Amino acid sequence: MASIKPSVPKGTRDFSPAEMAKRNFIFDTIKTVFRKYGYQQIETPSMENSNTLLGKYGDEGDKLIFKILNSGDYLSKVNPEKLTTHNSQLIAGDISEKALRYDLTVPFARYVVMHQNDITFPFKRFQVQPVWRADRPQKGRYREFYQCDADVVGSNSLLNEAEFVLIYDEALSKLGLKDFTIKINNRKILSGIAELINKADQIVDMTVAIDKLDKIGLEGVTKELLERGFTEENIEQIKPIILLEGSNDEKLLSLRTVLATSAIGLKGCDELDAVFHYLESFIMQNGKVELDITLARGLNYYTGAIFEVKTNEVQMGSIGGGGRYDDLTGMFGLKDLTGVGISFGADRIYDVLEELNLFPEATSQTTQILICPFDAECEAYALPLLQQLRNKDINTELYPAGAKIKKQLDYANAKAVPTVIIIGGDEMATGLLTVKNMVLGTQEKLTIENVLDGVIQGS
Amino acid sequence: MASIKPSVPKGTRDFSPAEMAKRNFIFDTIKTVFRKYGYQQIETPSMENSNTLLGKYGDEGDKLIFKILNSGDYLSKVNPEKLTTHNSQLIAGDISEKALRYDLTVPFARYVVMHQNDITFPFKRFQVQPVWRADRPQKGRYREFYQCDADVVGSNSLLNEAEFVLIYDEALSKLGLKDFTIKINNRKILSGIAELINKADQIVDMTVAIDKLDKIGLEGVTKELLERGFTEENIEQIKPIILLEGSNDEKLLSLRTVLATSAIGLKGCDELDAVFHYLESFIMQNGKVELDITLARGLNYYTGAIFEVKTNEVQMGSIGGGGRYDDLTGMFGLKDLTGVGISFGADRIYDVLEELNLFPEATSQTTQILICPFDAECEAYALPLLQQLRNKDINTELYPAGAKIKKQLDYANAKAVPTVIIIGGDEMATGLLTVKNMVLGTQEKLTIENVLDGVIQGS
Repeated sequence: MASIKPSVPKGTRDFSPAEMAKRNFIFDTIKTVFRKYGYQQIETPSMENSNTLLGKYGDEGDKLIFKILNSGDYLSKVNPEKLTTHNSQLIAGDISEKALRYDLTVPFARYVVMHQNDITFPFKRFQVQPVWRADRPQKGRYREFYQCDADVVGSNSLLNEAEFVLIYDEALSKLGLKDFTIKINNRKILSGIAELINKADQIVDMTVAIDKLDKIGLEGVTKELLERGFTEENIEQIKPIILLEGSNDEKLLSLRTVLATSAIGLKGCDELDAVFHYLESFIMQNGKVELDITLARGLNYYTGAIFEVKTNEVQMGSIGGGGRYDDLTGMFGLKDLTGVGISFGADRIYDVLEELNLFPEATSQTTQILICPFDAECEAYALPLLQQLRNKDINTELYPAGAKIKKQLDYANAKAVPTVIIIGGDEMATGLLTVKNMVLGTQEKLTIENVLDGVIQGS
Repeated sequence: MASIKPSVPKGTRDFSPAEMAKRNFIFDTIKTVFRKYGYQQIETPSMENSNTLLGKYGDEGDKLIFKILNSGDYLSKVNPEKLTTHNSQLIAGDISEKALRYDLTVPFARYVVMHQNDITFPFKRFQVQPVWRADRPQKGRYREFYQCDADVVGSNSLLNEAEFVLIYDEALSKLGLKDFTIKINNRKILSGIAELINKADQIVDMTVAIDKLDKIGLEGVTKELLERGFTEENIEQIKPIILLEGSNDEKLLSLRTVLATSAIGLKGCDELDAVFHYLESFIMQNGKVELDITLARGLNYYTGAIFEVKTNEVQMGSIGGGGRYDDLTGMFGLKDLTGVGISFGADRIYDVLEELNLFPEATSQTTQILICPFDAECEAYALPLLQQLRNKDINTELYPAGAKIKKQLDYANAKAVPTVIIIGGDEMATGLLTVKNMVLGTQEKLTIENVLDGVIQGS
């Protein structure tokens, strides 16, 4: 067999043990919080039938979907004349019937419709699985990455919205973040503004522009609105709204005045009011909630609340987002099922925790004790201790006899094992084992009983 | 958008919350044991470059690898004349450069070689990820399924083999299995037998036949050996060996006599002896170890120990297997790196636990308390309780106001929530909440303090 210089496809990654421990810390924390709020995990297949995915993400999205070549003689189904057209797009449907999921939302909608008779609504599910996109890879953008979503469908209670704020707050606080903002807006308020300026049909253009306020400033937004066909007068009306200052309640009050003539705008204010009212009953941890009228994220999709989360500790794009949608399952024939959901940006959260040095040092994912024997006799002597430590649920390894102690200690260091027990002839003769604290560099002599007792106390 | 009748690709599955809770029970148990023995998790990408995978699983295997169509104008790279051949196999390499992983072993070998300068050997890794095979789907055989592997590379100590026996024992016992057999053999013993009958070049034919002893009996094996070109005399020599009875030590003793003239055969006996000797220092739980000379599994691959695990409680194929290999990374240019590994058959273990009713009733994966309010006022009254329960890390839900209590209780039942707290006008007036035990069907009146205290005691 010829030797191949090994590599991974561009945009994909291996995760080392150290990286996996950190990733698991993030995913386990988020999953625990999802469960605490009554969300239950599902998984869907990595591949879906192409007709489940295609047409759901726009033309650009379709191009980014990874298609799976049919097995066997995949060309046999292609009309030879069609093949001579050399038209990749035309022929793709004949040679590929399955594709890799592009997100977790469409497969979830498919799941709900397919299993609607087995599901008790409201259905609160979470899902943590990889997705694939044939995007051009760049810093922070991968072709395979995990999404981490929670959604509830079949309940229009705004308590769900409030609880998603609490979920963000609890999960991110548990991950160690000290200062972050959960921005919230409501599509109906954006509709109200568009209505107000008589541009209801241009709501997308309007929101795409004002969504950039953070990045390009008021001048930039003005320029973009003009380019998109809004008048100076429109802009004069929009400006004071998107520049609203003050507390959430103050902003809402101003909005009610401005949107007084727009039924849908007022409805949006009522919904936000209800969410804020729910939140008053809860004590939040490290997050704060901020009404941000410029927030629009995936507007065509959301019909009510819109969420976005930003850390205030480091420079970083949003680390979470979501919102309410009213017809997600319509594409699969189940109409009028309302839902609301959020997503955590795991890769970005990873980078934030790394930058802030928030990953816990020792975790249950790593070896806690390494036993280092001088030789085979010492190895045999160590076996009962090995079992006793494991019986106490201590992650313990015995380095197989035959290696120098130096090499064994290097192994412990490389694996960040905090405690090493060295067993040589002296140790066996006296029954006093050499116990090395690899973090402090100290060592002491302990009996096996001492070690086992210490482990109980320490654990 | 046209409505599509939703389905999943054949051979793939959705996992519902109830199924996920059970699957997580299996995976979490196995992962915990892997970690206890010093194995650390890695993950590799779902897709690998085609040249990493192709040619590693034989011609039949290559056909079962799911290939990913190149993005964009994938036909542009294909020579038009070549296209007119209509030869699917010939053209596949031009239109597909990536494929879905077929197992975890080859990606692991690729990982080790690619990261060899960052790895401290011995490298003990585990990996739990899905793999994909374009097999014809049938009962128990899926096109997407999880593999659950642990391997150590860079250590030839037989302590590793002994520890894999212990890992099987501990993990399967923790999963609730009461009676299972960890079969062990050694490729070198099989080589010794083949040598003994002067058929070293036909070792594969020999082992494929005797591996079937369980299924087709001695007569069947004899017939197959004859068909494969073995003589009556060969069979007379093989028969007493594969029919060896007695304890592992007795079998080994007999083997040493039979294989006295075969250096490699005796080496195999020594290795097994060492593994058994290690195991004497440990107390096993519910598993027993059995030397099975007919065991051959993937012989071309293994060079030392061979493992296979069977439950004795229900009819089921092997629920685990593995062995030692001496040149796994050779295909990627890193020679002479020895390794040994095992795998758990998660889907089969799932079926076994289901049949034996061994899945735990309540798990930390489900909601423990559902609060059911009669109306919006009761909902508001319940919010602080909701937070207090969650502050105690109790998975708690509040059913949003607006549904009849009957519907709320149905929801609790469907989700198997064990405790329900009903809050109506009476409850608010008296401060005595109605607490319903959904398992026993009993109910009592408790103050909020009672509830919170009970929760502490009960948790």
